[in-house]
Amino acid sequence: MRATYMFGAGDVRVITVPDAELQKSTDAIVRVTRSCVCGSDLHPYHSLPATEAGTPMGHEFIGVIEEIGSDVTTLSVGDFVIAPFAWSDGTCEFCIEGLQTSCLHGGFWAGNGIGGGQAEAVRVPFADGTLVKVPGTVDESQYASLLTLSDVYGTGWHAAHRAGITGGETVTVIGDGAVGLLAVLSAKQLGAERIILMGRHEARTNLGIQFGATDIVADRGDEGIEKVRELTGGHGSHVVLEAVGHMPAYEQSVGIVRPGGVISRVGVPQYEEAPVGFGSLFGKNITLTGGPAPVRAYIEQLLPAVLDGTVNPGLVFDRTVNLEQTPDGYAEMDARTAIKVMVK
Amino acid sequence: MRATYMFGAGDVRVITVPDAELQKSTDAIVRVTRSCVCGSDLHPYHSLPATEAGTPMGHEFIGVIEEIGSDVTTLSVGDFVIAPFAWSDGTCEFCIEGLQTSCLHGGFWAGNGIGGGQAEAVRVPFADGTLVKVPGTVDESQYASLLTLSDVYGTGWHAAHRAGITGGETVTVIGDGAVGLLAVLSAKQLGAERIILMGRHEARTNLGIQFGATDIVADRGDEGIEKVRELTGGHGSHVVLEAVGHMPAYEQSVGIVRPGGVISRVGVPQYEEAPVGFGSLFGKNITLTGGPAPVRAYIEQLLPAVLDGTVNPGLVFDRTVNLEQTPDGYAEMDARTAIKVMVK
Repeated sequence: MRATYMFGAGDVRVITVPDAELQKSTDAIVRVTRSCVCGSDLHPYHSLPATEAGTPMGHEFIGVIEEIGSDVTTLSVGDFVIAPFAWSDGTCEFCIEGLQTSCLHGGFWAGNGIGGGQAEAVRVPFADGTLVKVPGTVDESQYASLLTLSDVYGTGWHAAHRAGITGGETVTVIGDGAVGLLAVLSAKQLGAERIILMGRHEARTNLGIQFGATDIVADRGDEGIEKVRELTGGHGSHVVLEAVGHMPAYEQSVGIVRPGGVISRVGVPQYEEAPVGFGSLFGKNITLTGGPAPVRAYIEQLLPAVLDGTVNPGLVFDRTVNLEQTPDGYAEMDARTAIKVMVK
Repeated sequence: MRATYMFGAGDVRVITVPDAELQKSTDAIVRVTRSCVCGSDLHPYHSLPATEAGTPMGHEFIGVIEEIGSDVTTLSVGDFVIAPFAWSDGTCEFCIEGLQTSCLHGGFWAGNGIGGGQAEAVRVPFADGTLVKVPGTVDESQYASLLTLSDVYGTGWHAAHRAGITGGETVTVIGDGAVGLLAVLSAKQLGAERIILMGRHEARTNLGIQFGATDIVADRGDEGIEKVRELTGGHGSHVVLEAVGHMPAYEQSVGIVRPGGVISRVGVPQYEEAPVGFGSLFGKNITLTGGPAPVRAYIEQLLPAVLDGTVNPGLVFDRTVNLEQTPDGYAEMDARTAIKVMVK
């Protein structure tokens, strides 16, 4: 089968690899209908050391079950399924609590013998625990929004949910990528009164407004902080949803959060140490939360509004390529000429 | 009047200063009945640069109102009052939200022209907003517990409250000082099922057991982390209450917190930068919260159980000195021969 591999920074190729095959009785093979390129794929795209073997790519996909192991009980061949970006057994204490990214027996796609989603098919471990079946008949027009449940919508939701938005808050979202935009949508769904989106790409911020942003701040750094403070009566934002992961975004979060407020991070931190002492978080009683989203915990909850069209998170996809064109998708995401690229 | 001043590291003296006097119409003068030495007073005791003028000391006191300004409306001369460790106007948006430590017009004792509590009397700004009147007749046997509402009990409560303890959790408390011990009491009151106290001073940990600790871990560092993990089935503690403020306590918190759990800090951080990235907080979805406790927000809530004897937080005081002996109190706290010293 054909699959996307990265052989080093900037070096993405679609190659022929052995077909995905069942290995354990709890596996399923999913024929991929749609996958996509993630903002987080750009980190290795910038920095992956060159290797001869390469590494499989892609952690978001939807598709149809082609084969199941003998111990898979809740899924059947032909089911249309959503795969969260982490696979999980569904039975350990963390899965039961809804923190599937900390599953005791789980893991992530594209590593340790598990393939990536930017491929024709994928072997899915713990299929009963990992996959969510979409009920009814799925129309092609729904693919984009269903695919966001694999990662970016659930991740934006995680940011807003962990921030404890219950309604009436001022929420500032840092980052106008797909996750930031869907954090706007999630904050809106959870009842945020005012949603300030910090971003500078007009096509993206326009979509942010469509998702519920009430204000756009294009400035960054101290000027951006100043603008948000002006918009919030000088005291800052109750909630900051940080969907970038770089240190300047963290510093911006600290600069705009209101005393007693929450910074919720879902951008994967590209730093380990950061200011948390009296002058940054402690003195103002700021809460820092977030992490890898257990999107598996949210799919069932978010699915009905996607299926009935109440929300349309799939609007974050502004470019579609065929599997063979996946390298072009990386280049467009990297050049920011596309918000998010879907792979057919 | 007599008041305690620090003139440099290790140099505490009781000196004669001008009497506390009303300066604004919203002030009150409080004749101090009891004050005390705080664990946080030991930070300047170790590091304060020497000055000729010295700096007034003490931020915890209870006493009797001696005089009020013309705009003080809710208090009268003769009222027995508790002073929180921060003064606040009681009317700004942060005070109304219960975050009086971020009061727009408030501040802290012993600075900017406001005296300290380790003195015969104190001028209290915004008396209506700051002070809490104790109803009924106050008996001397109640002084110790009432005094804890000035800081250490409210601070321990803040740690537990901000951690979101609702019942059934495993809670680990780092630090067996007065705040740590009262964090144990608070966690117990909020329904924690298991309370592990990390501390090595037997007199203190025994009091911790009296307050509700179910397990004591005397080890620190990697060994302490290992012990807590053993006690918690290998996964760590849902909640960590950090009542020390030094970096090793932070690192210990990260080491023992369970994925998805909360680290709530009330020990004033003696560091600014700390690990918060994928390998420490983010990867495991850890929440970091806490800060200076708005004890003013908790006094009315905690007072009834103190007055009726349901709880006895005043047990943290194991030494009482006269005002003139305050320097000895510092020395005993520093030598850890006393948990907490009350000043008469």
